[in-house]
Amino acid sequence: MMWGMNRMRLSTFCCGRNCSAYAQSVINLLKKPAIGDKITLKGWIKSLRRQKENTFIDVSDGSTETKLQVILPKDLWNKRITVGASIYVSGILKHSPRGQLELHADDVNVYGQCIITDGYPFAPRKQYPPEYIRQYLHFRPRTNKFASLLRVRSAATTAIYEYFASKDYTNIHTPILTSNDCEGAGEVFAAIPDNTSLLKSMVKEGIDSNEAFFDRKAFLTVSGQLHLEAAVHGLSRVFCFGPTFRAENSRTRFHLSEFYMLEAEIAFMDKLEVLTKIVEDTVKDLTKMTLDKADVDMKVCSEEAKCDLKWLDKEFIRVDYDSVVKILSDNRDKLKEKLDPTNGLTKEHEMFIVKYFDNVPTFIIDWPKEMKPFYMKECITDTRKVSAFDLLVSNVGELVGGSLREDNYEKLKSQIPERSQLDWYLDLRKFGGCPTGGYGLGFERFLLFILGINNIKDVIPFPRWPHNCNL
Amino acid sequence: MMWGMNRMRLSTFCCGRNCSAYAQSVINLLKKPAIGDKITLKGWIKSLRRQKENTFIDVSDGSTETKLQVILPKDLWNKRITVGASIYVSGILKHSPRGQLELHADDVNVYGQCIITDGYPFAPRKQYPPEYIRQYLHFRPRTNKFASLLRVRSAATTAIYEYFASKDYTNIHTPILTSNDCEGAGEVFAAIPDNTSLLKSMVKEGIDSNEAFFDRKAFLTVSGQLHLEAAVHGLSRVFCFGPTFRAENSRTRFHLSEFYMLEAEIAFMDKLEVLTKIVEDTVKDLTKMTLDKADVDMKVCSEEAKCDLKWLDKEFIRVDYDSVVKILSDNRDKLKEKLDPTNGLTKEHEMFIVKYFDNVPTFIIDWPKEMKPFYMKECITDTRKVSAFDLLVSNVGELVGGSLREDNYEKLKSQIPERSQLDWYLDLRKFGGCPTGGYGLGFERFLLFILGINNIKDVIPFPRWPHNCNL
Repeated sequence: MMWGMNRMRLSTFCCGRNCSAYAQSVINLLKKPAIGDKITLKGWIKSLRRQKENTFIDVSDGSTETKLQVILPKDLWNKRITVGASIYVSGILKHSPRGQLELHADDVNVYGQCIITDGYPFAPRKQYPPEYIRQYLHFRPRTNKFASLLRVRSAATTAIYEYFASKDYTNIHTPILTSNDCEGAGEVFAAIPDNTSLLKSMVKEGIDSNEAFFDRKAFLTVSGQLHLEAAVHGLSRVFCFGPTFRAENSRTRFHLSEFYMLEAEIAFMDKLEVLTKIVEDTVKDLTKMTLDKADVDMKVCSEEAKCDLKWLDKEFIRVDYDSVVKILSDNRDKLKEKLDPTNGLTKEHEMFIVKYFDNVPTFIIDWPKEMKPFYMKECITDTRKVSAFDLLVSNVGELVGGSLREDNYEKLKSQIPERSQLDWYLDLRKFGGCPTGGYGLGFERFLLFILGINNIKDVIPFPRWPHNCNL
Repeated sequence: MMWGMNRMRLSTFCCGRNCSAYAQSVINLLKKPAIGDKITLKGWIKSLRRQKENTFIDVSDGSTETKLQVILPKDLWNKRITVGASIYVSGILKHSPRGQLELHADDVNVYGQCIITDGYPFAPRKQYPPEYIRQYLHFRPRTNKFASLLRVRSAATTAIYEYFASKDYTNIHTPILTSNDCEGAGEVFAAIPDNTSLLKSMVKEGIDSNEAFFDRKAFLTVSGQLHLEAAVHGLSRVFCFGPTFRAENSRTRFHLSEFYMLEAEIAFMDKLEVLTKIVEDTVKDLTKMTLDKADVDMKVCSEEAKCDLKWLDKEFIRVDYDSVVKILSDNRDKLKEKLDPTNGLTKEHEMFIVKYFDNVPTFIIDWPKEMKPFYMKECITDTRKVSAFDLLVSNVGELVGGSLREDNYEKLKSQIPERSQLDWYLDLRKFGGCPTGGYGLGFERFLLFILGINNIKDVIPFPRWPHNCNL
């Protein structure tokens, strides 16, 4: 039988062009409080105070960090109403004597109880350290701080798309699966079908069975840059924002096996000072846009002692690599780690340099060629250097890395790693090539920076790191 | 030496708060044409007509589908100026006698030539079929149609973030690497570090060396749904938008090994008709927003014969699965493929059903339980059915799939696949659980639908499918 009553059924919740199938959210109630109206609220009990006549309940639906206070007369109370339970309440919205919104309930219903003694890891009114909460990734979005973090992360994500659209960039979904390895670093994950009989059925002569699916090795991307460069030759400004991967046994508070990178490429870019100016503007503007969208949430989840946005009003520092070496050398008695000129700066060195410049974000420019990847462009004034930068910030160290790209076909060809299968990348310079430049910003590091949070595992919903891939 | 001239150097391109480090883009020139002003333009030559006095060049910088016509006096012409070359032009912006913008050049410079005979695969003024262009993924963004497609894809992506933000959803970055396999379908990619000595150094007793990195198998996600469900218990409305993976040997025009899914979950959702209303609104609103942002680009890249947006003004059809079986059975003489009631609809059946309903998008609701995954909620009226829907559309077949989720702990426990390691998923129902529902929309299929394009490989920048992982 066809669902012939369709139109009638729809009308039970749809009352014309302006109606919404969505329930009212707390954030909307706060924006336009319908004082005196009967409303319904669905959410989770965050705290609860029983008094003689009434029970006071703070209810959150996760749309904002603010809870709505519900006043429940004693005849409506029952013992299923506890912290953590999900409930439906209806009632009249009023202003309290102190001017706060409160819902005077006339009906209540518990959807799902939350019986702590059945094994729920969080007790009411208790504070837990992030390491403890992190053990329960599936419950973590219910904690106040982490819910705020998720809304901040979401606000920053929306800001990225809005900002780059306003600057005429085209968003490119660069692939996760790729047959080349951008940096040539080698610490990559291979993607191999789990089904061995599928692989057997697909194998061609001369190809290893592990490579049968794509007829070649396929890796998880470490960067979208090379693919962005294909798109920038024709679109002028492109960006990507998505997960990237490192199969490294790094277990620091700054490393994840899966993390998000914002990468951008710009055509006709031939000056490092212009590129750094664009990066400076972008970091500042994205921070301001995130503040605009989620300032209270930022306050809730940030570590205030380590969070200081004074840099927003300052011009970022530019200093060349040789000067940084001199600063570190002049201050070697204050440093545990020695500078190894072939390996570059350690985290301790990065942190020292940012402090040295009063915690103002600092571009280190003009790096020794041998310390940077093959695709970076030689400095005009010094062929031992490349026109590259790292942007260092407080609490994090390196936040952004970028460079002008080598656009000379012959030079690039002589520098390209052997067996790299990058003929296509070279071809970009052979036909209608132009100067280009770009950068990559670690999104979790950006959140650590603007929030002053300590550990990168606490700014991503489902962190993956060596020996840990829960859920 | 420190870059002490920093402030002065910046001032050479920065003239205060409203200045931009970006070059002017064609899309901005068109919005606010500065007639009579001297401007500079950087882009690629799309076509070229040499006449006695002047050469007429159409230049694109990829910011819009419109090219700017440049008039080059004969003394400025040189033989490096050919189709495909990247150039710099300066001159005065004027209106042509017919009212079109044109740039009267007084200076020109070629950055990169494009010598077709050196192996460039596209000749000027020639049309190529998409299968041919697809062989040159790195040059594809330079073709007019595909550049338009990329801008449409980018516009639709921005629309997704704006739309869901406006409806109070929180964006959740669900993980790519996961230890569980949502649908239990088994056709997954495993992620294994490529470095075997790294694996050896990390291995623990009793763990296979291929699993040494995470101490367990890690797969590439087939869906973010289960992780979204963890977040929706606390945040009420969540969505994710990102790549998902299938290690299936499917080589149809609708399948990719890596494709984008938009998934949303909504708490306190207990009616399938409300969920389908939300999906209908979302599909319509995202289409309208994409049209608003990129209508001309949509015209350029769509196949007009197959592209018809009349459905935007119609209410979507709702029909239950049993009725669909009856329609197919009544029309079996018009169908090549027989209906196998345990395997569900084939692509031919889906296409037939949409046509049957005059190409109006059609929800098929209330599916037999055994045809759908374990997490879907039983219909109240018929326990052999689940409250699930597929949304079928023209040119594509299934575009969206969704359901109410089973929120009863005991029922879900009895249905959950063995060895699924989904205790955490069950726990969501044990503590503060509530009715939830959600859906997943195939983003490439959405583009095929609104553009009438034939092959899914032509709506994603870097398609991956069996035996193909180029670049």
